[in-house]
Amino acid sequence: MEEKTLSKKKVSNALARRLPVYYRNVCAMVTEGVQNLTSAELAARIGNTSAQVRQDFYTCGGVNGYNAVVLKDWLGAKIGLENRKQMVVVGTGNLGRAIISFKGFNKLNFFIDAAFDSDLMLKGMQINGVPILNVSILEKYLLENKVDILVITTPAGAAQEIFEMAVKCGVKGVWNFAPVDLRPKEGVEVENMHLGDSLMTLSFRIREKEENQALKEKQQK
Amino acid sequence: MEEKTLSKKKVSNALARRLPVYYRNVCAMVTEGVQNLTSAELAARIGNTSAQVRQDFYTCGGVNGYNAVVLKDWLGAKIGLENRKQMVVVGTGNLGRAIISFKGFNKLNFFIDAAFDSDLMLKGMQINGVPILNVSILEKYLLENKVDILVITTPAGAAQEIFEMAVKCGVKGVWNFAPVDLRPKEGVEVENMHLGDSLMTLSFRIREKEENQALKEKQQK
Repeated sequence: MEEKTLSKKKVSNALARRLPVYYRNVCAMVTEGVQNLTSAELAARIGNTSAQVRQDFYTCGGVNGYNAVVLKDWLGAKIGLENRKQMVVVGTGNLGRAIISFKGFNKLNFFIDAAFDSDLMLKGMQINGVPILNVSILEKYLLENKVDILVITTPAGAAQEIFEMAVKCGVKGVWNFAPVDLRPKEGVEVENMHLGDSLMTLSFRIREKEENQALKEKQQK
Repeated sequence: MEEKTLSKKKVSNALARRLPVYYRNVCAMVTEGVQNLTSAELAARIGNTSAQVRQDFYTCGGVNGYNAVVLKDWLGAKIGLENRKQMVVVGTGNLGRAIISFKGFNKLNFFIDAAFDSDLMLKGMQINGVPILNVSILEKYLLENKVDILVITTPAGAAQEIFEMAVKCGVKGVWNFAPVDLRPKEGVEVENMHLGDSLMTLSFRIREKEENQALKEKQQK
């Protein structure tokens, strides 16, 4: 029974993925000068139904009216953007560098303080102003500094050990790009980003469309 | 009515995202030497219920038995992996380079033939054996070569124009990493990968957990 009550409080994965889309689009509408918006306008923009938008906002506790700025701030608070998040990136290959150099994160209140790599040659270098430290001091760093989110962009083999270290040192969230599935553990939330999965989903949609097209043509004959 | 019949054929986004996870895990089990597996074993491995696994496989047309290799091939065929997919990457910044250098795609039957960039200095160079061509010849290239999937890793401003070109030239799928939402159009499937959205979903989960924790502590007092 207890588990049921607890899991009830956790919103669905689908909604947890729609919230950033709402936020991003409401931000864009504010930038465009929109003052008030309807659920239908927001829904049309993101290719969803207004009933879904209203249901989602209700599930998240409800918001008074649809003033664009109020809605933006409400969504931002739901997503937890009001608190500055300190991040570190472990692995400074192309993907690590891409994440460190990505311009959009600071605007969302995410800040990368340090990068770690096992390559001793990189020690003392910087990427976009972010210092590269040796991974041998990662545990010490995590214990001495406030790190909300640890980003893993290492090869698969190194990911689990780094994850365990993050759990042990009290990091709140792990954003994992290594091609392994890490599971939430002892208070650490995990977001696994599998590039291959995304590409396979696209492949599936292409195949599905081709099959439906073939079926349609067959029916028309 | 017609629309309803058509949309019925399209599986849910949630299932389209679970299929690659099934595939990846069944592949791993085959590598580990597993010969037969149950829906419960697969479910436990990916943190889902066996009822969900059976339901998903039924939705996809059903599979006879759970021989690991048969299941792997069946899932691969559903995802469309049996056909070699030719890809090009537009934009050769850190993210473009990361994708071009990613080792896992070839194994899944995806191959990157060329990269495009607007920087004339890069012309004639290669990344991981993939030639960098100037974006001015992209349209010509798309018309003269078989390109199944076009990957966009350009800044936001350039994405829409490249997308329109992909649509015009008959590319089947667009994998978009630029921070704009591209919508499926005239037979072109789109997979938008928003790094910021993924980070925001993680942020939301962290905040949700903290709130539930605070609520629990309050109830215990």
